[in-house]
Order: sequence, then C-alpha cells, then structure tokens
Amino acid sequence: MNHAEAAGQALERLRATRPLVHNITNFVAMDLSANALLAIGASPAMIHAVEEAAEFTRLASALVINIGTLSSAWVTAMRSSAGAARDARKPWVLDPVGCGATTYRTSTALELATLEPSVIRGNASEIMALAGTKAGRTRGVDATDSSETAMAAARAVAQEFGCVVGVTGHVDYITDGERLLAVEGSSELITRVTASGCALSAIVAAFLAVEPDAVHATAYAFASFATAAERAARDAPGPGSARVRLLDELHALTAETVRSSARIR
Amino acid sequence: MNHAEAAGQALERLRATRPLVHNITNFVAMDLSANALLAIGASPAMIHAVEEAAEFTRLASALVINIGTLSSAWVTAMRSSAGAARDARKPWVLDPVGCGATTYRTSTALELATLEPSVIRGNASEIMALAGTKAGRTRGVDATDSSETAMAAARAVAQEFGCVVGVTGHVDYITDGERLLAVEGSSELITRVTASGCALSAIVAAFLAVEPDAVHATAYAFASFATAAERAARDAPGPGSARVRLLDELHALTAETVRSSARIR
Amino acid sequence: MNHAEAAGQALERLRATRPLVHNITNFVAMDLSANALLAIGASPAMIHAVEEAAEFTRLASALVINIGTLSSAWVTAMRSSAGAARDARKPWVLDPVGCGATTYRTSTALELATLEPSVIRGNASEIMALAGTKAGRTRGVDATDSSETAMAAARAVAQEFGCVVGVTGHVDYITDGERLLAVEGSSELITRVTASGCALSAIVAAFLAVEPDAVHATAYAFASFATAAERAARDAPGPGSARVRLLDELHALTAETVRSSARIR
Repeated sequence: MNHAEAAGQALERLRATRPLVHNITNFVAMDLSANALLAIGASPAMIHAVEEAAEFTRLASALVINIGTLSSAWVTAMRSSAGAARDARKPWVLDPVGCGATTYRTSTALELATLEPSVIRGNASEIMALAGTKAGRTRGVDATDSSETAMAAARAVAQEFGCVVGVTGHVDYITDGERLLAVEGSSELITRVTASGCALSAIVAAFLAVEPDAVHATAYAFASFATAAERAARDAPGPGSARVRLLDELHALTAETVRSSARIR
Repeated sequence: MNHAEAAGQALERLRATRPLVHNITNFVAMDLSANALLAIGASPAMIHAVEEAAEFTRLASALVINIGTLSSAWVTAMRSSAGAARDARKPWVLDPVGCGATTYRTSTALELATLEPSVIRGNASEIMALAGTKAGRTRGVDATDSSETAMAAARAVAQEFGCVVGVTGHVDYITDGERLLAVEGSSELITRVTASGCALSAIVAAFLAVEPDAVHATAYAFASFATAAERAARDAPGPGSARVRLLDELHALTAETVRSSARIR
Repeated sequence: MNHAEAAGQALERLRATRPLVHNITNFVAMDLSANALLAIGASPAMIHAVEEAAEFTRLASALVINIGTLSSAWVTAMRSSAGAARDARKPWVLDPVGCGATTYRTSTALELATLEPSVIRGNASEIMALAGTKAGRTRGVDATDSSETAMAAARAVAQEFGCVVGVTGHVDYITDGERLLAVEGSSELITRVTASGCALSAIVAAFLAVEPDAVHATAYAFASFATAAERAARDAPGPGSARVRLLDELHALTAETVRSSARIR
C-alpha cells in the first residue's frame, strides 16, 4: 500500500472514531483549530486551567500544545498536560509558534520539547531556532526561511528530543532523525490565513490518535490538509473566502480524494 | 396568540431596544457570540476583569456566563457578575460547557447554578452531569446523549435551582420543572460549527432582556436560532460556509419569518 | 500630490516592507485583526506575556494596544510595551475600547494615554469619555454619539496627550489638535461585524510603520479600510459575508483603487 492510499484509510479511521483532541492553544488559533478539527471529523476541546488540564488530557485521545500567546499560567498547564500525556503514553504535538523571536518563547519551547512530544510541527524559522542553528532572530511568527534550509535542523531536533519533526513550507518535510518524507502541495493564499499552521498542528494530533507511526501520521495530516487547502485556494477571491472554503473542503475530504491527491514521497 | 407569533413579536422588541448583553464566555465562543448578537440586533460586550465585571453587569440588560475555557481568575469574575445580576434582578444565562468532563468543571457549574440563573442552557450530557444522573463521563464538549434522554434530568435541575433549563439537541426541550416546551428544527451541519451552542446561549440572554417569562424567552431564542440555522445549512457546501450564512440569516430574520417557521409546542 | 494619491503610495510601501505589527489586543478582535493585517500585507504577532512583551515591541515596526478585554496582568504588559515603544521611538496606537463604560476601563485608558501613543483611535463615545466631556456613560462598546459630536473632545485629547486622535463614525475625523482631516466612506453593515474597529486600529499601526506623519498615516489607513469595507458591504447578504469579503477586499486593494476611491479632505 502506498502512502497516499494509507493516508486515505487513516482519514476513514479518524472519521469512524471521532478522536477527542485536547487543545492548549493560542487565542488567535482557537476558533480555526476547533472548526478545522470538527470539519475533518474529530472532536475538539480547549481546556487550559491547571485545575483540570492534566485530568482532561488523560481522557483525550491526543493533545496539542501551541505556545502562540503563552503566559506563565498557561505554561504551567502546558507542562502539566504534556507530562500527563507522556505518562499515559498519549500522543502529543508541540507547535513552537514564534520560537526564536524572544528569549521567553525559545526557552519555553525548549523546555516543553523535553517532555517527549510525539511530533514538533513548525515553520523553518521556528525549527532552526529550536535547533539553535539560527543566526538571526525569528521575525515574529511568519517564516523567513524555506523549509529546505531547515532540513539539517529538523533532523537534529528529532534526534535531540527523540520525536518526529514536521517542517511546513512550500514543500513540507517530516523526519524522525532517520526517515524522511516530503509532502507537496502548498497554497500561497492559505499562508495569508492566520493560524492555518496552528490548525494543521491540531490535525496532526487527530491523525496521531488513529495512526501509531508518528512519521506516517504527520505525513497523512499534512497531505490531507494540503489537499483541502489547494482546493480551498483555487478560484478563491481572497484570504477571507479561502479560510471559509478550507473548512468546507476539510469537511468534504474523502479517502478517495486524499488517495488521488496526496503527494507524499 | 400562539408561540410562533409571540416569538416574532419578541424579535421585534429585541431589534427595537437593542439590549446590551454582557458576556463572560470562552475564548472559542467570543467571536461567534459577539457576531451573532450583533447580527440578531443586540449589543454585545465581553468583559471579564474582576475589577469591572459586576459594575458592568449592573449596566447591562442581561448576562451570559459560559464556562468553556474557565480558569480561577475568570471564575471569580463569573461569581461576581452572577451575584450582581441576581441582586439587581437582571436575567442571566448559565452555559455549563463540558460539565461532567472534569471535577473542576462540574463543581464550578454546580456552584454557579446556585447563584440563581434565569436559564441554564446545555446539551443533554451537560444537563445530565449537572443533575448527577450521568453514569459515565461527558466526552469533551460534544453531547453523547440525545435531548430526550435528559428530560428527567432537566426537570430535576430546574426544580433544584429554581430556574429554567433548556436542553438542545435534535429536538430542543425547555422546562421550569413544571411546564415543558419543545422546539423543533435542527441542523446537523451547524453542530459542526464550533461554539454555535454558545452563541445560542448568548441569544437566549438577549431574548430574556425583552421577555420576562424565561420559558418563553428561551423558546423564542431557540426557535429564532433554529430558523436561521436551517436556512444557513440549506445548500451550504460545508461548515465554513454554514457559519458565515448563520450570521447572514440571523441578520435577515424578520418577525414574519419567525412566525411562519418557528415550531414551538 | 493629493491625499488619495499619497494613500495609495503608502499602501505600496506597506506591501513592499511587510511591517511586523505587535498586537496586544482583546480576545474578540485577535482573529480579525491578525487576518486583516495579513490581508493588507503586514505581518501580525499577538504577544502579551509580561516576560516578553517589551522585548518583542523593540523588534516590531509598530504596536497596537486595545483594552477590549483587559485584566490586570494584561494591563501590566500593555504598560511595559507602551513604555518600550515610547523609549525606542516606535509608533503605537491606543484603542480605548469601551472607555467610559466602567471606572476601571476609563482609568486604564487614561493611564495608557500618558505613555505617548502616536494615535488614539476610538468611536465618538470613547473619545468623549477620554476627554471627560461625556455626561452619561458609554453604553457598552458601541458608539451612542456621532463622530461630529466628538470633534471638540478629539481636539482636546490630542492636545492633552500630544498625539493624533482618530474618531470613526459615519464620517471619520483625524486631528493632532491643530490640523483636521475628514475621511468619508462608511458601511452600516460593517458596524455589525464585531471588532471591525479594532482591526482598523491595527491597520493604523501598519501604516504608521511606513508613514511618519501620524495624521497622514491615520487618514491613509482609514481611507484604505473604508474603500475595502464599502466594496465588501456592497451586495453582501449580511454581516457574516461582509466580514469574509472585508478580508478579500483588503487583500485585493491596490494603490490605484485607493487613489481613485479615497475621500480624504
């Protein structure tokens, strides 16, 4: 069975099991992440209070932690939920938004990375900052480097933290430090939709709930998202419409569409 | 005058008075709640700082408290505003999102319920958890029980807390512990739009500002929302478009449309 | 060169330099502000932790502080970032949402105004409350006064705080206490889209990054936004669609469109 066919089957398992995905994510991303998870067939919940975060993680099928609008109280809950996921052997995704932009952001991302995430998903600038190989500063939250530039950094981060790293860009790359997959299919217009990368991280968590191989799960999530994003951007008059259509297309995805459109190699 | 006609007239009073609705709601629901209130003709405000929450409640026509993304600082403000609403005899709605999913969430919902809400609006799983009649756990924030299953629980909660309970589902039920109304009209697609239930709770608050009978106000809100939701979902290519059209349809609602479409019995 | 032509050229500089705009804004406005900044060609970042806010302000090209959903921890970061912007001579915009509605809100707005904002952007009720010339209370966050009524207040606030004041309404007015510009072009429907005023404040910050004269930068931002808003509202079936089209139209704006549509006098 090739990757595209396996991606389609994973989507079917996702739809059939409707995994509960626990999100501790940023304020900008919450709406799109929750809607994207519902659209693709998962059940999202946003819970960040330290009083309940770890308890809820133990009930969920997967967790995503996104440091976009972090603050100390939230980092406490992130630490608590990441630890609970690790201890309960639940898959979890770290999205190190803006890593490299400030000292606090970089140190928080590095600390969370030690809590055994299944997958770290970021843009090239963020992954390079995490690897410590970025000379300059990350400029805000938008990538200033291409995903190819971050290949060595991705491998280094994967090996250092014993996880899978997914770098998104014009081409997406996924590595566990040894294996390498590439996913093609990008949409310039979707990069103008805020938090679309964050929503993708949430979808990676949903696929981890139905596919134990984290390299494959990440590739299936990237390919499913890319398929929906390309269809959404096609003929869209602008980023407002592209965002709406992205949710429509995630909802309309079928195993057959993914099988015929996914470009994973 | 039948219920549907009264619902249409209540909508006209809402449009004419443009009630100020104070929302202490979750991060995912804020955008849709504010837009839904604006669309139907109310004036929303989101205010949660303990320094000003109660002061603002006293200026508002109605209050909605939604525990979706609760944390201790927010619960302090919820308590403060709920108490201010009770003392000033302002109507207020409690939306116990995810009640039953964690200990913290259930105990917070139960505590707030003692502060004399006018209406508690939830899905079947949440209302059953509030009644203590739910054997298992609420699974995240999505209902796993049908609204019919929650009828006894709804009556019990209404009697225990001396309020109206509205349970939404395929059919919506509203009870004050004695009277019972049912509102028909559901849209599967709208359940794939995150926070649509939260937005409905906010609209219940807006109707409470113009209709003193809380059973009726809740029924009018449910029927108005169902009318807009059904029109929004019709021919919508997916949940992204359905969300956009829901706001368009709430804005386009007229007394006549509600009168002819509302199915309240 | 007339104002409309200069506005078009400023838009081209914005597109060419893609300024990094630091937002400390409210929970309702984050999604629309980030998407509006991306759509018009800027690079948004939302960062509010006191551990990193000032550090990030020093990296950004401009800052916007919006007190919509303020709380004490956020006010600490607002103070810190506003001070950093002032010290580094970076332009920054204050949006005093709901000023006048509560004591806390008014005192916070007044305190932040002393930290040398480049521009204060608000509706008539907010600016009058800031000037202390408002007899009654601001009613929530929606304006209850026309922008004309606030002309004297705007001039007084500009002189007291040594900044530019932009009052939006049916006609928008901009003053530094001496000069006065008016921008025409309004859309009733866009006022039914929550946080559209907040998004406009963020766009003012983006124009301040490419135009040193703050009266002109504000006028160019207002005129660009009004052009996009008018096009978005035209034939829109309701506020849901108008919000989507607003982002499409901000993205589609060209120097030529602004030049031919801007009505600045």
